[in-house]
Amino acid sequence: MTERHYDRLVTEALREDLGPGDVTTELCIPEDISVEAVVRARRPLVVSGTGPFREVLRQVDRSVECRILKRDGEECAANDAVANLRGSCASILSAERTALNFLQHLSGVATLTRAFVNAIGPGGPGLLDTRKTTPGLRNLEKEAVRHGGGQNHRRALFDGIIIKDNHIAAAGGVRAALERARAGAPVGMKVEIEVDTLDQLREALEGGAEIVLLDNMDPDGLRRAVALAEEFCAPGPRRVLLEASGGVTLDTVKEISETGVDFVSTGALTHSAPAADLGLDFFPRGVY
Amino acid sequence: MTERHYDRLVTEALREDLGPGDVTTELCIPEDISVEAVVRARRPLVVSGTGPFREVLRQVDRSVECRILKRDGEECAANDAVANLRGSCASILSAERTALNFLQHLSGVATLTRAFVNAIGPGGPGLLDTRKTTPGLRNLEKEAVRHGGGQNHRRALFDGIIIKDNHIAAAGGVRAALERARAGAPVGMKVEIEVDTLDQLREALEGGAEIVLLDNMDPDGLRRAVALAEEFCAPGPRRVLLEASGGVTLDTVKEISETGVDFVSTGALTHSAPAADLGLDFFPRGVY
Amino acid sequence: MTERHYDRLVTEALREDLGPGDVTTELCIPEDISVEAVVRARRPLVVSGTGPFREVLRQVDRSVECRILKRDGEECAANDAVANLRGSCASILSAERTALNFLQHLSGVATLTRAFVNAIGPGGPGLLDTRKTTPGLRNLEKEAVRHGGGQNHRRALFDGIIIKDNHIAAAGGVRAALERARAGAPVGMKVEIEVDTLDQLREALEGGAEIVLLDNMDPDGLRRAVALAEEFCAPGPRRVLLEASGGVTLDTVKEISETGVDFVSTGALTHSAPAADLGLDFFPRGVY
Amino acid sequence: MTERHYDRLVTEALREDLGPGDVTTELCIPEDISVEAVVRARRPLVVSGTGPFREVLRQVDRSVECRILKRDGEECAANDAVANLRGSCASILSAERTALNFLQHLSGVATLTRAFVNAIGPGGPGLLDTRKTTPGLRNLEKEAVRHGGGQNHRRALFDGIIIKDNHIAAAGGVRAALERARAGAPVGMKVEIEVDTLDQLREALEGGAEIVLLDNMDPDGLRRAVALAEEFCAPGPRRVLLEASGGVTLDTVKEISETGVDFVSTGALTHSAPAADLGLDFFPRGVY
Amino acid sequence: MTERHYDRLVTEALREDLGPGDVTTELCIPEDISVEAVVRARRPLVVSGTGPFREVLRQVDRSVECRILKRDGEECAANDAVANLRGSCASILSAERTALNFLQHLSGVATLTRAFVNAIGPGGPGLLDTRKTTPGLRNLEKEAVRHGGGQNHRRALFDGIIIKDNHIAAAGGVRAALERARAGAPVGMKVEIEVDTLDQLREALEGGAEIVLLDNMDPDGLRRAVALAEEFCAPGPRRVLLEASGGVTLDTVKEISETGVDFVSTGALTHSAPAADLGLDFFPRGVY
Amino acid sequence: MTERHYDRLVTEALREDLGPGDVTTELCIPEDISVEAVVRARRPLVVSGTGPFREVLRQVDRSVECRILKRDGEECAANDAVANLRGSCASILSAERTALNFLQHLSGVATLTRAFVNAIGPGGPGLLDTRKTTPGLRNLEKEAVRHGGGQNHRRALFDGIIIKDNHIAAAGGVRAALERARAGAPVGMKVEIEVDTLDQLREALEGGAEIVLLDNMDPDGLRRAVALAEEFCAPGPRRVLLEASGGVTLDTVKEISETGVDFVSTGALTHSAPAADLGLDFFPRGVY
Repeated sequence: MTERHYDRLVTEALREDLGPGDVTTELCIPEDISVEAVVRARRPLVVSGTGPFREVLRQVDRSVECRILKRDGEECAANDAVANLRGSCASILSAERTALNFLQHLSGVATLTRAFVNAIGPGGPGLLDTRKTTPGLRNLEKEAVRHGGGQNHRRALFDGIIIKDNHIAAAGGVRAALERARAGAPVGMKVEIEVDTLDQLREALEGGAEIVLLDNMDPDGLRRAVALAEEFCAPGPRRVLLEASGGVTLDTVKEISETGVDFVSTGALTHSAPAADLGLDFFPRGVY
Repeated sequence: MTERHYDRLVTEALREDLGPGDVTTELCIPEDISVEAVVRARRPLVVSGTGPFREVLRQVDRSVECRILKRDGEECAANDAVANLRGSCASILSAERTALNFLQHLSGVATLTRAFVNAIGPGGPGLLDTRKTTPGLRNLEKEAVRHGGGQNHRRALFDGIIIKDNHIAAAGGVRAALERARAGAPVGMKVEIEVDTLDQLREALEGGAEIVLLDNMDPDGLRRAVALAEEFCAPGPRRVLLEASGGVTLDTVKEISETGVDFVSTGALTHSAPAADLGLDFFPRGVY
Repeated sequence: MTERHYDRLVTEALREDLGPGDVTTELCIPEDISVEAVVRARRPLVVSGTGPFREVLRQVDRSVECRILKRDGEECAANDAVANLRGSCASILSAERTALNFLQHLSGVATLTRAFVNAIGPGGPGLLDTRKTTPGLRNLEKEAVRHGGGQNHRRALFDGIIIKDNHIAAAGGVRAALERARAGAPVGMKVEIEVDTLDQLREALEGGAEIVLLDNMDPDGLRRAVALAEEFCAPGPRRVLLEASGGVTLDTVKEISETGVDFVSTGALTHSAPAADLGLDFFPRGVY
Repeated sequence: MTERHYDRLVTEALREDLGPGDVTTELCIPEDISVEAVVRARRPLVVSGTGPFREVLRQVDRSVECRILKRDGEECAANDAVANLRGSCASILSAERTALNFLQHLSGVATLTRAFVNAIGPGGPGLLDTRKTTPGLRNLEKEAVRHGGGQNHRRALFDGIIIKDNHIAAAGGVRAALERARAGAPVGMKVEIEVDTLDQLREALEGGAEIVLLDNMDPDGLRRAVALAEEFCAPGPRRVLLEASGGVTLDTVKEISETGVDFVSTGALTHSAPAADLGLDFFPRGVY
Repeated sequence: MTERHYDRLVTEALREDLGPGDVTTELCIPEDISVEAVVRARRPLVVSGTGPFREVLRQVDRSVECRILKRDGEECAANDAVANLRGSCASILSAERTALNFLQHLSGVATLTRAFVNAIGPGGPGLLDTRKTTPGLRNLEKEAVRHGGGQNHRRALFDGIIIKDNHIAAAGGVRAALERARAGAPVGMKVEIEVDTLDQLREALEGGAEIVLLDNMDPDGLRRAVALAEEFCAPGPRRVLLEASGGVTLDTVKEISETGVDFVSTGALTHSAPAADLGLDFFPRGVY
Repeated sequence: MTERHYDRLVTEALREDLGPGDVTTELCIPEDISVEAVVRARRPLVVSGTGPFREVLRQVDRSVECRILKRDGEECAANDAVANLRGSCASILSAERTALNFLQHLSGVATLTRAFVNAIGPGGPGLLDTRKTTPGLRNLEKEAVRHGGGQNHRRALFDGIIIKDNHIAAAGGVRAALERARAGAPVGMKVEIEVDTLDQLREALEGGAEIVLLDNMDPDGLRRAVALAEEFCAPGPRRVLLEASGGVTLDTVKEISETGVDFVSTGALTHSAPAADLGLDFFPRGVY
């Protein structure tokens, strides 16, 4: 399949790092030297970003062979090899930093996501990302969340509806906002609304919300919200989905996930994940 | 002055978040409602990114007034206002997330940099960034490092020379690599080389290196490196600059900075800074 | 609000028509002549495309005043004025064709859509567009459909799920396809499936489809499909939405719309709407 | 030869339809399934657009084999196969709609053009297009007109001269406009002028026009115009070319074409051609 | 009128010179210093390029006032002022080199063109440019030729027909090539052919060429070619245009221009014009 | 290695020359004719630009074989073959002019540079280029200077520091400007300053300038400047680099180069080099 959605980003990243040329490499490395190199995890991590990693190499020099050894989403122990490269020494040196910058950032997102998923444990609610992403990297970071075991919330303002507090205020209340949204929502798009209180939740249920984001409620509040929603739908099944957001950390996520909500969401997955530790080494007698 | 170097990035960020339109806002918010809003620090931080923040608003709606209250590089306490907005409610809601994504990410970089600078304390070595930046954000992150009080290392492969271990291996040793580099270096560019050992450092000094990156040496090794360089230059002043890199954390940076090196550098400033906590609030009776 | 999502398209359209310059106008029209001009409907139509119309003029010459007299979605009788222009004669002549090309095409879409909406009559099912749009004009044409009174189906492959016959075949049947889709569907996205027969419809209902596209069924088949879905949901309300597609023309749409389906959809709205008839006239003594 | 002039348009069209990914296909179709498919005319048509059709597939997945069975300009009966595809099922499904949107639109233009050409019959005047094209598709639509058997008028404002009524008014009359145009016309470009009356035609002939567009004249008027031009050039051959425009439909074109003019032109070829009816089918046991 | 056709080029030129910032100016110049500056011709020249000159300043800083004192095409003596600037010192310093690079290159083209025009003298043949232009600057250089008093030949391969020797060879002779070209030439485009000999010229005339390029003929050959063409057209006027090309220098152009040809053309105007000498000076007490 | 840094420029150049198609070639040349062709120097020259030459062909038609026979920087006698082409006649004709425009311009720069280098003779100072380059061609022209035997000065405002007279004036003198620059200069960037007099030179030396540009000094002044710098550094070696600029021509460069400066620089290398004379010929029986 095409790699189109990150091609331009790779081009831009190479433009900012490589631009008109790698002065050091051009001066020090004879053009005809070839090497073998390996990219290794220096600490345990979950891999993401092998697509743009490979694309960086391809854009720098199509003749470099790049063998990916771990699939996106796979876990690595320290020292595990993630990719093997073989080809022009100069090309690999010029591409190295940009290729690793993608791999380290995205594996960082996947690794942090996996930590949250593990903290929730099996059978718990889905873990959702947000739109709090790094400018320009939205789609890649959302993929990395999936690689880590999370689920994607709406991608953007154009493909999902979430009515927030300011929308509610400007529309004149929960009921009015829901009415407008449901009347005009594109076919196929569910209507979600954010609420702070059980009163608002009740209004949202009465207004026909299909998903409710419970903002900054403590576990007790969340449990009461779940109960309220079940009661509202009884005797049928609870059709409305509930999402807990706010204050979700590795320390709190387990307790939140046991309140009965369908999803927990946190921006930290994408805006605060530290880079994963990966490095590129030439094979001992790599230069040949 | 022009805001050109991040204009396209802002356009791309809006394209990924706003694209053909903000469905929720179009459905819920009458076009003629205006508001006042304020962006506040929710925790102490150092501001960076007010330029792209303002540009996001400008690209969404030129008629929104955006008053920046803190300059890039300024410190904020929790609750300090960073910017005031006044204009179309719909426009501000549609721009909010993208604008904040820039401000939170870059303020995060500046804030972490400031923490390192404070840990080094006055009179210590310069704090340098690296090329371990987020793809597409190189120039903005390097600015954020300056806002935090750090200094910029080379921007890219095209505007500085650093001979690394693989260059040395492929060129046939420190001396050969330095010779090639010094012969061809563009006028105005200093030649830097990375060394692991004191023996390599000696070779680098003899080869005429103008800056030496001391890679992964412990404080004791760094002190010996400084002594060696001073001895080499005696009786004149030590003309070669020394940079310590590897293992630089908020815990270790003080000790490293006291070894006599000219610079310490770390990729963490740009690849692992958590987002700064900033939020946008509408004024109580903001909707008018 | 920003006009960003069609700015580039306008630039491209001007590049293909105006490019390095309007030879005729440069030769024949003195630069300092100003005029007043009016854009009129030559036949009854529904207006759409005033945004790109105005943007063409703005890109050619910011100093031309452009007053739009009819809002998108408004109906015009023959001879009604849609816009007034005032400014450089040369600029208006150079921009005229490109500006009208947008206005005529998009008003054509809106006008055809309105004809379908009128044929359905009040209280009938929603009229939906499809992805059968002109390359490059997707978003503008979808807006034009709304201006005509239609509703938008999913915008693209990335923001909605419709399982078609080939997906069903490759996935191994309706049930398997639905299971995969529901398990992985992004939060907020409803799962739609296309069926040809009542048997497939039953499978779709059992599989939890939220919308079902009834492909190429005649009115009798559609009525039976509606009955089946109601029976399936009894005693509760029919929660699954039904969309009729295939064979929808101005002649058939009324009968189809009376079968009880929630939506009818047709690609003709965007791929076969003839251009609306609009022209630009200079005022009698327009040249001054 | 290069496909460059529509490459970007294809990229843009894929960006609007496929963007960051085809959700349905990613969920339902295993990546390793391959298929054979055929694109068939569902009604008689003239083919155009096989170039961008193929380019869409290439951009989505270079490994899909695409065999074009009909050349641009060739006529198809209903059910004739136009292209065969073989390769990844997921890729073909993701590319299908965008590829067909090009093929259907451009074949629609070629088909309508052919109908006009047939109505004119052999030995008649040339059939010309105009600049009334779909924004962004100018060059492809002009090619489609050629595929249908028409001829291209000037491509744009920059590569041909046509002095219209407003140019005449602003320049101070037919004679003055022609004088200016002929004095400055680029080498190799003929000077065309639009006239409404026989008096203007006479002025145009005296002023040295090389082509005259006879605007909105009825057949009788056209015949008199032809006679006037012949008389003017006598005893030599009529060197000035005459083009009839305005009111040209499939019903009127025959009569107009028998008046002796050299060309008839109509914008309908490009702005109002309905999409040609083509569809993609998987082979019965296509999935393998 | 729009400056669109060189806007992107200016953006690209600033990107290559200014990119992420002017290090020297940022370090040395306080942001709030304003200056007045003047651009002067250091030697006599013909001005061209004031449009992109002004656009560079606009893109760097819209608040800088730029008053152009000489129109494109005007002659300057040494020391004449061409433009006045007033505004931010930092902005003017950052824009200076890029703005001058446009002005010096294009004025160089206009100045050389004027020299040729003067050498030909009044009443002589037209002076034409070619497609031998600097990549990326085609349109600006062609404008500069007009500013110098020359005329433009076709702009590109897409807007004019010139049959060259290789076309003749591949098509199977002058007659065959002309026949193909005349049959398919777009309406409004004249057919030009290049010939080396009088025999070829005769064939070209018989084949209906509208312009003939006489390649590398000496003045005597040119005179005979003119005579041949006149004889061919007798008793009517010579309708075919003749263009002399090859070996045209400031020394030879006068003699060539007296042979009776309609045009002389030379690539030197655009590919070998030395930069005009212009410089920017701050006013003595310019800093305020 | 990648050809990325000129890919877009080649695309833009083809867009301006070839655009939607080569009318002449499409009319006259059957698509299936293949040829062999050779590019020859028509006069002695130094080759540069084989990269973009080849890229033009690749973008027009990947199937054309292009064998480069001379490396960039190699000298050619008149009639030497520089490249062989083999493939589609139509493709080669359509690409020819654009490909040659790159090769002729860049070889022109390399050839002029070589003339200066030869005039300086062995053992002399380095020959530097400037930022006086053709807009859009900065990087290619700087490469051509290296191919000619010159060295590159800073590439742009962002990768080097040169304090010029206006910076000095605005900063309040040589000393103040140097102080600001040295305090903030990025690691690895040397500080250069331009001086007009020996007094300024002394100030520059005292201020710690690492390179001094001696502007418009005559040979005698240059000699005194060299002496002053040596005296300043005594008894150590002269560490400051000296660059002579202004009035450097092929006639004067020898004398200037014997004054003891380290570099001479001139903008003429890039802004006033005449195009090198190269042409493409089909092999006698090339059409097959």
